[in-house]
Amino acid sequence: MKILVINCGSSSLKYQLIDMDNESVLAKGLCERIGIEGSKLTHQPAGKDKYVIENPMPTHKTAIEMVMAALQDPEHGVIKDTSEISAIGHRVLHGGTVYSDSIVVNEDVKRVIRECFDLGPLHNPANLMGIEACEAAMPGTPNVAVFDTAFGMSMPEKAYTYAIPHEYYEKYGIRRYGFHGTSHKFVSAEAIRFGGLDPETAKVIVCHLGNGASVSASIGGKCVDTSMGLTPLEGLIMGTRSGDVDPAVLQFIMNKEGLDINQMLDILNKKSGVYGMTNGISSDFRDIENAKADGNHLAEVALDAFIYRVTKYIGAYAAAMNGVDAIAFTAGVGENDKTGRKNICSSLAFMGVEIDDEANNVRGEERVISSPNSKVKVMLIPTNEELAIARETLALV
Amino acid sequence: MKILVINCGSSSLKYQLIDMDNESVLAKGLCERIGIEGSKLTHQPAGKDKYVIENPMPTHKTAIEMVMAALQDPEHGVIKDTSEISAIGHRVLHGGTVYSDSIVVNEDVKRVIRECFDLGPLHNPANLMGIEACEAAMPGTPNVAVFDTAFGMSMPEKAYTYAIPHEYYEKYGIRRYGFHGTSHKFVSAEAIRFGGLDPETAKVIVCHLGNGASVSASIGGKCVDTSMGLTPLEGLIMGTRSGDVDPAVLQFIMNKEGLDINQMLDILNKKSGVYGMTNGISSDFRDIENAKADGNHLAEVALDAFIYRVTKYIGAYAAAMNGVDAIAFTAGVGENDKTGRKNICSSLAFMGVEIDDEANNVRGEERVISSPNSKVKVMLIPTNEELAIARETLALV
Repeated sequence: MKILVINCGSSSLKYQLIDMDNESVLAKGLCERIGIEGSKLTHQPAGKDKYVIENPMPTHKTAIEMVMAALQDPEHGVIKDTSEISAIGHRVLHGGTVYSDSIVVNEDVKRVIRECFDLGPLHNPANLMGIEACEAAMPGTPNVAVFDTAFGMSMPEKAYTYAIPHEYYEKYGIRRYGFHGTSHKFVSAEAIRFGGLDPETAKVIVCHLGNGASVSASIGGKCVDTSMGLTPLEGLIMGTRSGDVDPAVLQFIMNKEGLDINQMLDILNKKSGVYGMTNGISSDFRDIENAKADGNHLAEVALDAFIYRVTKYIGAYAAAMNGVDAIAFTAGVGENDKTGRKNICSSLAFMGVEIDDEANNVRGEERVISSPNSKVKVMLIPTNEELAIARETLALV
Repeated sequence: MKILVINCGSSSLKYQLIDMDNESVLAKGLCERIGIEGSKLTHQPAGKDKYVIENPMPTHKTAIEMVMAALQDPEHGVIKDTSEISAIGHRVLHGGTVYSDSIVVNEDVKRVIRECFDLGPLHNPANLMGIEACEAAMPGTPNVAVFDTAFGMSMPEKAYTYAIPHEYYEKYGIRRYGFHGTSHKFVSAEAIRFGGLDPETAKVIVCHLGNGASVSASIGGKCVDTSMGLTPLEGLIMGTRSGDVDPAVLQFIMNKEGLDINQMLDILNKKSGVYGMTNGISSDFRDIENAKADGNHLAEVALDAFIYRVTKYIGAYAAAMNGVDAIAFTAGVGENDKTGRKNICSSLAFMGVEIDDEANNVRGEERVISSPNSKVKVMLIPTNEELAIARETLALV
């Protein structure tokens, strides 16, 4: 059975066609600059050369049609007919408080995705366009919505409630939702399986450390807390996002610089994080590492602060669960930065965490990196959001 | 030697006259509604009746003159002459990045307090007025400034740096400062002394839980992190303050409700916390407890969330220091709420915290409340900011 995975942004569309019999990727690709001049599709069939088509893509509908054509192309394609695609799994950013699981798309589901445009203004409209484009291109093929917020829906009230006037929750649904949910769910489940933990009771902390970064705490695979909040801005220090700040910082800067709140949030989302802390060296942690190696003090502070905040979140979540059985590192930085993992774990010695330096000398490979004596199992678990979406989709069709 | 302690607000002035030979309070009192119609002075000499004077107080200078008169009053006074006052200790909110300790006031000090008006717009101008009123009323008597931010000055860069563009630190001094510093310093020192800990290396977490609330982490009495930030808004859930929220929450509410940033901050400072979470039941934790006992669900969530956040901060700071030797509870809620202390400590069992229920059955008394087996010493240490200010003052004159 073949499943197509779609991740739509406002002007982009990423896809993977996965053969679920062996979970292998048959082809993947990216449509860029949808609705903008200079759009192109880059199609990568497994084991074959890349195939680039530069062609106008006024809408996501055109983009999907081009993807279908590429998948069936006599030379670069991997299927004969779209009927070989059994289902389409869509990453959808925001399911509000309605969806705590993936669901087969119908009119009700589309209505909820539309109702959540406010909560996910950049992503939800694009996600819906992707679904509707697939409905048009492949009538009758089931579409499944896999919500990035679904994992967070199991959080208790004490974890998701902000200490603001209650009316804002009632009126606007302002609460902690959490994001990267598909990754956190996938990695926590994989940590339990790979680590041989009790699937009902295991306390797992997942550190998804990439250009976007978040931490989650889960018990028996159910999320109990997570660092991103109403939006993906809260929590850790990221490539360009500030994560946690005193809300009064916004007031101070806005009044001094004459900014409005939308300009301010733009700065906190796009000009902050390690990028802003280093006066704009880069949003890529590897560049910041290099700058630190060259003696740049701001780069050193940015990395120290990044690691420090991850460490504090792990401590906080261990306290939230009264203990932790496993800590899993994933995503770009989490899978590749052995020094970061080592530094984080060194500060957790008080709770019995002991890293094995030799085992930790690894990149992007599923592995236990704590010593046999460690009271907490520390693991590197590569994330795979596309495969996670395909599995969720398969389970529903 | 007698020391007068002054804490000036924009329209109020609190004072205590302390005999440092035995650290006893000779008299204390409060001037209310300074500069507003209906101002009054309530003077309380130790062991005597309260004495209330309703008299116009157009300025802090008049207020200080009335305090001096009350202190020397033949019937209600406790001194014969102001020359008996050896020094005056002033609580000053903000010392910027300049002062990491208390200091005898001179023109330079006053200049810095003035330069920090931006950072402490409600308090610093009042604090300076109090100092200048005392200079006028008692020429030649030394005034000492005890900064609420001084304790936080020992934080490392990774703890005080926000992940925002570096220019805002350079231009405006935007960083974590921390507040309640006098209390955190006093209580952490007292925890080390009373708990018999190593004064050089002891890792102490102080939970100052009152209507304003903050947590600090210190090693050998030096602050390494604290929950309040640029302003006293960040961190824990408080009586009316939100503490931590996703910065995007501000944008969402402001755009929906048509608020400007100053209105928004007013809501986060004055209409949020347990007050806002409960639809305005009260900012007093005792009222919220009663509402919870009456079955009010929002009150239950507010208290759960308050306790939960304290617990997470303790876990975070234990990770920040790679362990903790002592946890000290102080201030109104911290000294009186044994259930809260018990609930917090129960979640910390994984790090060897074990509370002794019998010892914990106490209010406002210095006491070890953990069991002898507890790996972390848990204590109740009543705070006394006025005495702390008097001691700081004594040490400098």
